[in-house]
Amino acid sequence: ALRTKLDTLHPADIGFILEALPREERLYVWDLVKAERDGEILLEVSDAVRESLIETMEPHELKAAAETLDADELADLAPDLPPEVIQDVFQSLDSEGREQLRAAMSYPEDSVGALMDFDMVTVREDVTLEVVLRYLRRFEELPDHTDKLFVIDRNDHLMGILSFEALLINDPDMSVAEVMRKEPVISFEPDDPADDAAQAFERYDLVSAPVIDREKRVIGRLTVADVVDFIREESEAEILSHAGLREEEDIFASVWDSVKNRWAWLAVNLVTAFIASRVIGAFEGSIEKLVALAALMPIVAGIGGNSGNQTITMIVRAIAMGQVEQSAMQRLLKKELGVALFNGVVWGGLLGVLAWWLYDSASLGAVMTAAMTLNLLLAACAGVLIPMLRQRLGADPAIGGSVMITALTDSGGFFIFLGLATLFLL
Amino acid sequence: ALRTKLDTLHPADIGFILEALPREERLYVWDLVKAERDGEILLEVSDAVRESLIETMEPHELKAAAETLDADELADLAPDLPPEVIQDVFQSLDSEGREQLRAAMSYPEDSVGALMDFDMVTVREDVTLEVVLRYLRRFEELPDHTDKLFVIDRNDHLMGILSFEALLINDPDMSVAEVMRKEPVISFEPDDPADDAAQAFERYDLVSAPVIDREKRVIGRLTVADVVDFIREESEAEILSHAGLREEEDIFASVWDSVKNRWAWLAVNLVTAFIASRVIGAFEGSIEKLVALAALMPIVAGIGGNSGNQTITMIVRAIAMGQVEQSAMQRLLKKELGVALFNGVVWGGLLGVLAWWLYDSASLGAVMTAAMTLNLLLAACAGVLIPMLRQRLGADPAIGGSVMITALTDSGGFFIFLGLATLFLL
Ligand SMILES: [Mg+2]
Ligand SMILES: [Mg+2]
Ligand SMILES: [Mg+2]
Ligand SMILES: [Mg+2]
Ligand SMILES: [Mg+2]
Ligand SMILES: [Mg+2]
Ligand SMILES: [Mg+2]
Ligand SMILES: [Mg+2]
Ligand SMILES: [Mg+2]
Ligand SMILES: [Mg+2]
Ligand SMILES: [Mg+2]
Ligand SMILES: [Mg+2]
Ligand SMILES: [Mg+2]
Repeated sequence: ALRTKLDTLHPADIGFILEALPREERLYVWDLVKAERDGEILLEVSDAVRESLIETMEPHELKAAAETLDADELADLAPDLPPEVIQDVFQSLDSEGREQLRAAMSYPEDSVGALMDFDMVTVREDVTLEVVLRYLRRFEELPDHTDKLFVIDRNDHLMGILSFEALLINDPDMSVAEVMRKEPVISFEPDDPADDAAQAFERYDLVSAPVIDREKRVIGRLTVADVVDFIREESEAEILSHAGLREEEDIFASVWDSVKNRWAWLAVNLVTAFIASRVIGAFEGSIEKLVALAALMPIVAGIGGNSGNQTITMIVRAIAMGQVEQSAMQRLLKKELGVALFNGVVWGGLLGVLAWWLYDSASLGAVMTAAMTLNLLLAACAGVLIPMLRQRLGADPAIGGSVMITALTDSGGFFIFLGLATLFLL
Repeated sequence: ALRTKLDTLHPADIGFILEALPREERLYVWDLVKAERDGEILLEVSDAVRESLIETMEPHELKAAAETLDADELADLAPDLPPEVIQDVFQSLDSEGREQLRAAMSYPEDSVGALMDFDMVTVREDVTLEVVLRYLRRFEELPDHTDKLFVIDRNDHLMGILSFEALLINDPDMSVAEVMRKEPVISFEPDDPADDAAQAFERYDLVSAPVIDREKRVIGRLTVADVVDFIREESEAEILSHAGLREEEDIFASVWDSVKNRWAWLAVNLVTAFIASRVIGAFEGSIEKLVALAALMPIVAGIGGNSGNQTITMIVRAIAMGQVEQSAMQRLLKKELGVALFNGVVWGGLLGVLAWWLYDSASLGAVMTAAMTLNLLLAACAGVLIPMLRQRLGADPAIGGSVMITALTDSGGFFIFLGLATLFLL
């Protein structure tokens, strides 16, 4: 009964069920799935779950599953397959398939080439729409997300696009050349960053777009389904990386797999925490004399870290949207310093009064306010400069910024507060 | 010259340019934009920038801009328009338009009703494809993202869908009823959560889908373009909320606008930091006797916070994907406690040895290891329980979890470490 139920489900739904099941039950369901659907389901599940399924499959099962897929899909699966399986599958392809698989696997992960497929319908510009309509009737099915046909010349050069809208609303006696869109045709090259293509799909609300080579020959196609998956994966990765997780976890993974996914971040934080601890260690003499410092110092460090993370999140976001020119750096720095100064005076002032009241020392309160303001200014500078300098150096402005800024505001906050206290209070 | 250049640009591109410009230059460009394009451009810019533009416009300009929009677009803009402008525009609509606008504005922000539009092409099931083809040729244009026609009966009930694929590959003498898809037709109701619709669009790779009422009458349409915008906005909001930003900022906003966007989070953190500070204050006597405690305590608190944030991020993500049943709580708790124990023994052990070496005290090292392990276990419990209990109570599992867990691991970490030290070292 479960088996017949599974046969009626969409592969994405089966993938979803597999992801939500603990290991043993997952493998039990996986065994019930018809072998010819294995390939399409493997494409739908997360990397971690995919690995757990592939581990249990024999090479001949994997080969059979792989052979049900298109070249672009095969390329997506390839990194998780044993090399001998890929070799076998490759041998079994015709020359066009081999060429496509080789092409699809040759592009880096975040490029248009890695997202494109090879399913497209092309027509010539000198025929009438009637001829196109008759041509389409010879198909058993059209590729997913076909909303336009690519108009090419005899050498595969892209001449324009014929949308289904144009095909359907116009008189069938008109020629393709008369109704096709020539300028501007939005197309991509396989080396273009997938990010740029995703932004174009969002901005111009595209469903599909041609991928062309340097000579403007059509070599593939990008669809909104693959772009949506890419957008989703990118934002997942960003959210996970904020917490220092390398990748999405199979929530039923073993303790050991989880440890491996998380250890790098903990190690980095251990180092930064140790440095901050040594900064405090350098002021142990002052703390011994005035133990209130020990209780107040985490406030200075913590608020600086939170404020710095707000600034860096905002700047990274704006850079990712292409909203920030390097020339805007000074202006942004001025603004963020203004916000920091305001918060330092208001919140720092409040905390200063609290410290004064708690420890009955106006000078301790003044040091508290000054230290919070200085640490907030430090956080603002770092929040603007870290991502903008990383961008100028060609690095990803998002990666590791939050760790760096927290390290800086912790060590810096302890140093500023304990240093000021040592100078003025002891 | 700039003006003619602007006339040729897509409204989304103009919106992008406006967002990237500082205030004065932004308003200068905005004045150059043709008045009849104001409406479509206002739809494209971020909320913050939209407000800055609308502020500068006269009521009659706003009314003219609003009148160029469809009912669903108008509903999106309405919250930012002065009430008298909405009133005026409403008066100028015909009865169908008023009905649509009233409907579109009546649904909550994160529902299907708020995302749907009213542009659709419907056909009857008893006609031939040839008749449908001739009917479509009478259109000047088709609604954006039309990839299927909705098949309805004389009372607007949804009978099935006729994809352009089915229309184009089949013999034109066949009837709509013969080639339309009847079961399963993926459709939504206006009260469905937009999240669910977005997941369905991703999972089934949809381009458009009908929205129906309780009686299965077609009342609107959802398109992938609006779904993609929704997905993007959701993930932006999630990333921003991690850093305690209420909304996306216009990066050229005034200092005061930025302060307003960020103050709530800083205030909450100030309170939690103050509580942690009072926990330390309770142990001032111990710190006075053993000042090494002051230097080591931030390590215990910090590592606990980082580890807890990893756990909670992972669990929140899995809940959002619908991957976690309440029944899995025990199993997840066991696993996370396992990870915490492992990390406590390994990293805590390492830090214990370092503390021993630095302060030449084996018992201080042992307290350090024990405190780190206990705080990691606390972080693991909180990381699993906070989001799962929030979900059980019907609250959003994502909101504020990171603040709560950091507050807990800070105060808890200080308490555990200083408490153990007071018990065993003094
Ligand atoms: Mg199977
Ligand atoms: Mg395909
Ligand atoms: Mg690929
Ligand atoms: Mg595809
Ligand atoms: Mg046919
Ligand atoms: Mg869009
Ligand atoms: Mg901290
Ligand atoms: Mg204007
Ligand atoms: Mg519309
Ligand atoms: Mg709406
Ligand atoms: Mg729309
Ligand atoms: Mg016509
Ligand atoms: Mg999909």
